[in-house]
Order: sequence, then C-alpha cells, then structure tokens
Amino acid sequence: MFKIHDYKGFPNPTRIRIAISEKGLSDQVSFVSVDVPAGEHKSVAFLSRNPAGTVPVLELEDGTHISECTAITEFLDHSIGQPTLTGRTARERAMIHMMQRRAEAGLLDAVATYFHHATPGLGPHIETYQCREWGEKSLDRAISFMRYLDQALENRPYLAGSQFTMADITAFAGLLYADIVKLEIPSDLTRLKAWRARIIERPSIAS
Amino acid sequence: MFKIHDYKGFPNPTRIRIAISEKGLSDQVSFVSVDVPAGEHKSVAFLSRNPAGTVPVLELEDGTHISECTAITEFLDHSIGQPTLTGRTARERAMIHMMQRRAEAGLLDAVATYFHHATPGLGPHIETYQCREWGEKSLDRAISFMRYLDQALENRPYLAGSQFTMADITAFAGLLYADIVKLEIPSDLTRLKAWRARIIERPSIAS
Repeated sequence: MFKIHDYKGFPNPTRIRIAISEKGLSDQVSFVSVDVPAGEHKSVAFLSRNPAGTVPVLELEDGTHISECTAITEFLDHSIGQPTLTGRTARERAMIHMMQRRAEAGLLDAVATYFHHATPGLGPHIETYQCREWGEKSLDRAISFMRYLDQALENRPYLAGSQFTMADITAFAGLLYADIVKLEIPSDLTRLKAWRARIIERPSIAS
Repeated sequence: MFKIHDYKGFPNPTRIRIAISEKGLSDQVSFVSVDVPAGEHKSVAFLSRNPAGTVPVLELEDGTHISECTAITEFLDHSIGQPTLTGRTARERAMIHMMQRRAEAGLLDAVATYFHHATPGLGPHIETYQCREWGEKSLDRAISFMRYLDQALENRPYLAGSQFTMADITAFAGLLYADIVKLEIPSDLTRLKAWRARIIERPSIAS
C-alpha cells in the first residue's frame, strides 16, 4: 500500500492516476487530497513532503516521499510486473525518456508557465510572482511544440514507438492543461488529434 | 559503437562524458564536435538530429538520434552490465529520478536560463530572444536551490542515497554551469562543498 497526495483532475495528478490504472495498481493506492486551489501545496506541512510545492507526491509505507511525475512513474512501473510505461531495453528506455522530456518541456511545462505567469493562474494568494512576458512566450512555444508532436506521429502510433508509454501520458496531460487555458490544437494537426482521440479510449483514461 | 555529438567542456556534454566513463564505455564511443559557439547547434542539419537544438545527442548505429541527457544516460546505463547510475529497484529508480529532476530544474536549467537570458550568453547571433527579468529570477532560484542541495546531503553521502548516481552528475554539471556564470556556492553550505570536493576525485571526472 502507498499514498498519493494530489488534487484530482489537475494535469500532473492525472499523469500518475493514468499510470496507476495502466499498471493495475488501483487497489494498492489511497489518495490524500491536497487543496491546491486554497494553496495547501505551498503550506509548511506540504513543503516538508515536497520542497518544490507541487502535486502529486507519492508516500511510501516507510514515510519516504517521492515527487516528480517521472520518478513516481518509474516507481510504479518497476513495482509490479515487467515495465510497460518506461521501457525494457536500453533503446526503449532512451526513446521513452527522450519523448517524455520533450513533451514535458515543450508542452506541459510551457502551458503551465503560461497559466501561472500570464493568466490569473490559481489567484493572487498563490501566484505571488508573475513574469507576463515569459508566460506569453511559453504559450508560443507550446503551440510550436504541438506541431512537432504531430510530425513525430507521422510514422508511429505512439510518441515513443509502437506502444503506449510515459511519453504519451505526459503529452496527454499537456493537452489537458492546454484545454484549461483554452489553447486548442491547430486544426491542421490531424495526426495529433487522431492520437488524442485514440488515447482517450484507453480504459485508464476513459474511466 | 555509437556517436556522441557534443561540445567538450560545456555542462550538458559533461554529464554524458561522465556517464560514459562511469560505465566503462569510452572505447565504444566516438565524439563528433558541434561548434556551439558558432551556432552550429541551431543549423538545419543539426536540428534534424535534435529539433530542440541542444547538445549532446547520441547517434545509434542505425542512425537513430537520442537527445536529452536523462534519456542518453538511461541508454548508457542499460546498454552494459547492471544499471549503476539510474537504479536497480523501483525505490532506487524513484529516488534517483526525483533528485535528478530537482537538480536539473532547480540548478542546471535555472543557471542556463540566467546565462541565456540575463547575460550575453553565446552572443547576439544565437541569443535572438532574451527575457532578462526571467533570467535574473532564475539566478535567485539557483541560489535557493544550492541551499536545498546542502540540506539534502545532511544524512547521505550522495544526492539519492549511498551511491553516486545520475542525480549527482546533474547537480555537478549544474555547479559547473554556475562556475561559468561566476555564481559561487555560498560559504556556509559546507556539505555541498564537501560533496563537490569528493565528486571531483572520481576518475570519471578527474581525468
């Protein structure tokens, strides 16, 4: 048994909820809700779990806390059965981590930066520092990156190859974040739209 | 045999050179120099290897290109022997990836953002967009993060536990970058300084 501290429905928590479902670990997890809209993730108590002040955080039975979605996904993927989300061979691992990081930096984190810096974000009690120019620039970056994702899907069904992996989860969460800020996928990116439509059908996401 | 496209001495290339040495893979690699000061990493030819326009890039025998240091390190660590840099168990992998990502975001990428946005960086022909305010803010973030690293080393010799791992490599490269921008470790951070002094003695770094 382990705990996940998160806030249901937000993009980064969704990454881990999908991974838990994909690995069939739902009955081994209990969720602890962190009131992110109220700023609980910036409280002293929460910062002792994760000094970065972000959700989700995995809490192991011995009280160890693990933050960062890539790290939590590595834990989940290696805690039961063969790895399916992070790859088995050196080459698979390389492709998955590369595409995961690109999707994280180019889409998910870029949209997050726009949200926290160039919109009201979570409100003035939480967004105590904003750099609007950088936020706006990050939005341009996210749109460009959608075009890259569309190209990457030209010759393969999933971002890192023939299987659904952590890279797809990250990009999917990035598009969820884009929905929140009302950033649509440009209409000519038909491969990216088709990929999203397929991903949404997975039981780990549809449920 | 595989190739690494990089520019010797820069922080991110150093991460991979250390990993290659730690894994004993030096005789299986050839290096291709990319003229980063002249902007070769932003050329059309190089962008076809890595659309993000960054070094290092791993080129496999079949022509596949892998960018992102975490991805390249995963490849190297799983291509020979047991993993030593990225962990063997679910728990080890979680700790290493968490601390790696914290060191990357909080130190290495923060210092890089300062360098590219709030200093002349690689020069006006390469730094075609700068956001000085964000660059300055990133420097503050890096200094705060050094304090976190010092605390993290309170009860363990290496960042992710009892062994030298990818997390240490990332933080070490972050401090190399700090040297380039003349950002010193605050004098009261004695654990961080002692850790660095120990790391520098490793054959993979000293040589």
